[in-house]
Amino acid sequence: MNYDLIVIGGGPAGYVGAIRAGQLGKKVLCIDKERAGGTCLNWGCIPTKALLKSAELYETFKHAEEYGLSVKEVGFDFQKVIQRSRAVSDKMAKGIEFLFKGKKVDYVVGEARIEKENKIQVKSSDGKVTHYTATHILIATGAKARHLPSFPVDGEKVMTSREALVVKTVPKSIAIIGAGAIGVEFAYFFNAFGSKVTLLEMMPQILPVEDEESAEFVKKDFIKKGIDVLTNTKVTAVKIGQEIELTLEGADQKSVTVERVLVAVGLQANLEGLMGEGLTLNLDERGYLKTNDRYETNVKGIYGAGDIIGPPWLAHVASHEAIEAVEGMFVAGKKPHKITLFPGCTYCQPQVASIGLTEKKAKEQKIAYKIGKFGYRASGKAVAAGHPEGFVKLIVGEKHGEVLGAHIVGADATEMIAELGLAMHLEATTDELRSMIHAHPTLSEMIGEAALATQGQAIHS
Amino acid sequence: MNYDLIVIGGGPAGYVGAIRAGQLGKKVLCIDKERAGGTCLNWGCIPTKALLKSAELYETFKHAEEYGLSVKEVGFDFQKVIQRSRAVSDKMAKGIEFLFKGKKVDYVVGEARIEKENKIQVKSSDGKVTHYTATHILIATGAKARHLPSFPVDGEKVMTSREALVVKTVPKSIAIIGAGAIGVEFAYFFNAFGSKVTLLEMMPQILPVEDEESAEFVKKDFIKKGIDVLTNTKVTAVKIGQEIELTLEGADQKSVTVERVLVAVGLQANLEGLMGEGLTLNLDERGYLKTNDRYETNVKGIYGAGDIIGPPWLAHVASHEAIEAVEGMFVAGKKPHKITLFPGCTYCQPQVASIGLTEKKAKEQKIAYKIGKFGYRASGKAVAAGHPEGFVKLIVGEKHGEVLGAHIVGADATEMIAELGLAMHLEATTDELRSMIHAHPTLSEMIGEAALATQGQAIHS
Repeated sequence: MNYDLIVIGGGPAGYVGAIRAGQLGKKVLCIDKERAGGTCLNWGCIPTKALLKSAELYETFKHAEEYGLSVKEVGFDFQKVIQRSRAVSDKMAKGIEFLFKGKKVDYVVGEARIEKENKIQVKSSDGKVTHYTATHILIATGAKARHLPSFPVDGEKVMTSREALVVKTVPKSIAIIGAGAIGVEFAYFFNAFGSKVTLLEMMPQILPVEDEESAEFVKKDFIKKGIDVLTNTKVTAVKIGQEIELTLEGADQKSVTVERVLVAVGLQANLEGLMGEGLTLNLDERGYLKTNDRYETNVKGIYGAGDIIGPPWLAHVASHEAIEAVEGMFVAGKKPHKITLFPGCTYCQPQVASIGLTEKKAKEQKIAYKIGKFGYRASGKAVAAGHPEGFVKLIVGEKHGEVLGAHIVGADATEMIAELGLAMHLEATTDELRSMIHAHPTLSEMIGEAALATQGQAIHS
Repeated sequence: MNYDLIVIGGGPAGYVGAIRAGQLGKKVLCIDKERAGGTCLNWGCIPTKALLKSAELYETFKHAEEYGLSVKEVGFDFQKVIQRSRAVSDKMAKGIEFLFKGKKVDYVVGEARIEKENKIQVKSSDGKVTHYTATHILIATGAKARHLPSFPVDGEKVMTSREALVVKTVPKSIAIIGAGAIGVEFAYFFNAFGSKVTLLEMMPQILPVEDEESAEFVKKDFIKKGIDVLTNTKVTAVKIGQEIELTLEGADQKSVTVERVLVAVGLQANLEGLMGEGLTLNLDERGYLKTNDRYETNVKGIYGAGDIIGPPWLAHVASHEAIEAVEGMFVAGKKPHKITLFPGCTYCQPQVASIGLTEKKAKEQKIAYKIGKFGYRASGKAVAAGHPEGFVKLIVGEKHGEVLGAHIVGADATEMIAELGLAMHLEATTDELRSMIHAHPTLSEMIGEAALATQGQAIHS
């Protein structure tokens, strides 16, 4: 019952941190109150991608004729769509438990509480309490959907993403509050299957962290798809009856009445019940764990990684934070990195992916920059695949052409961004991107063209 | 009628070279005997990708239920499939002519002959002959399908890829001679639409330039799809009657009788009629133009780029060669590069993409290497998208972990390879690939995992 490391939380921070410690030969325990995989695998990234795949295909089926194909009676069984998504989550979650065994990570399901600096009690569902000790503790309990005081989430009429993932029928109409990645993905999904979707965002643009041009492109596309997209719009009153009436401020439209509401306004830290009496971990002003350069909290030996230490609430950031934290604990001379460079992806169609600075941020930071842009319509691969919509936009330093930011909207954007992630990781310049040979015909060629475009030398535009 | 540069050939080498010279402020003429775009755009890369997209979708439609969807009477109109492909080519070829105007490249259609070192005559289809002079000539006439003496190509029963692209009906049965990228793509395509396909290859593996594991993976998948794949197999006799009977050597099967044959055994240089009397350009032993480090032939002022200077017969290599050649002509101090590092892609499903060394080559060159492999089935994105088949394989230097070769088989391989192209272009190591943050959930994450796997530290396997 004595471990080198106990990880509380089995999500992308927790399970990855635990596995890394196991690889380093440490005795590790991972505790989760539900099954392994965390929100990402069970209630987030993975099941949504399964749902979105069904939605994409359903949309494609309706355009079969464009490809010389014919189908009749295109339909869907919504329960099967949901079941497939759950099956994908089940499979991947079981995979994590399998990995734990292979990597010699002990794993228990129960509610963990840190009693003292190095003592943890775990209460299992049958009420049994077990005590463990560890020289290091990594808190990776993540975050959960933030509720709005005005919207009592009942899981039926008013949902968070968690309930939306297992909704039984397609809502006739749905208002989605918050147009971040989660809100936008669900807007695409429900619209594809026939809901009348109203997407509401307080900020001036949907996908507020993305480049303005990306957000504008998706907004126009969504409107074309029949989604009502209302930006600069606040919900000022809610009336829940047979239906739900939202009073709006900011939009021309003064109210909207819908069957269901999805609240997607960000996350809040999962800290309930975690700290025993006498243990005080410092939090920041938003309620997240405060950690130092080594991911250590104010209490020696207790660390934090992932969503619990604050946004950007991204699984890939969480995993890398956990690896850095764990290597910092156990690898002599290792100085952990704080994660500052990471891609962001939204998996609606058209997809949105980015890394680094937006144009607005570059302006705010008074950086001298150039833009290179290339449109999908000039890509042979995009046209051949029937997806000629979108663009690649590079923001590069004016003097040296180093990539400062990259923004892609369109088919396969979320895969294409990897090349630009590596480019920024290695501080590549546009001279290096243009001299590299992209395969023809691929969508990735557009990255080379966008690099050329920063120098006014694109070949195909 | 006097130019800084005349480019003969309007394909990926020719039109790109012409545009680059235009960008450099030069007076340029591009001549092609057909419309601009070359084989790639009109009879190769682009129209095949359109056909393959229809084939992929048709296959997907048959699996609608797996995604919770339902369709009835899935069918196709083969003529519409072909027409769509032609329309894509038309659109992109017109795009090139449009680009020529914007980049101030003159363009004429006709048969070019180099009369003397700097004089060119062009005969248009109406018999009119025009004379031009240029200080530089770039020969970019490309290559065309090589015929086999034993197979008289009639365009009906015996086709090359050019005829196969406009075939009127789906052959009941087809033998494809040669399992390079072209043969393999057509095997996938015709099989998807119901042909009984026999794929014949003299070499011990299909896709002979690819890593053995990639080739083996596709072979097994093709066999599962119902394609007869015969490697180490020669066609020793041909009898063309109502049907075509091929006598085979090497395979257990001694003969195959088919409705049609597609010959896909490589390319030969397009040089007919190009050289006027008294002009001798040196050729290599395979009949391709011999050029020096600056892409210049034995005649000063006459250059060559693209397929005409020999394999690998890849559009992206051709384009870069042309850019290097043109910059070498007109940019002071520019030392052109010869292209040695380039990706290769095959767009069947599962897709195949690679760059750098195969394992066999690494062994032949006695390089000390390590392997890192990661399977699609452990990728959340691959499972969610319904494509859990394939792998990413990295071959890296044993000591420093520099990427020597990368091989991907599976969904989206042809886009994922771009990141590894950049990695090799920048001489990145596995330490750099593992510390880079890939977005979750993406297929590209598998590249990070494969990098970790070379060090025995993959997280998800």
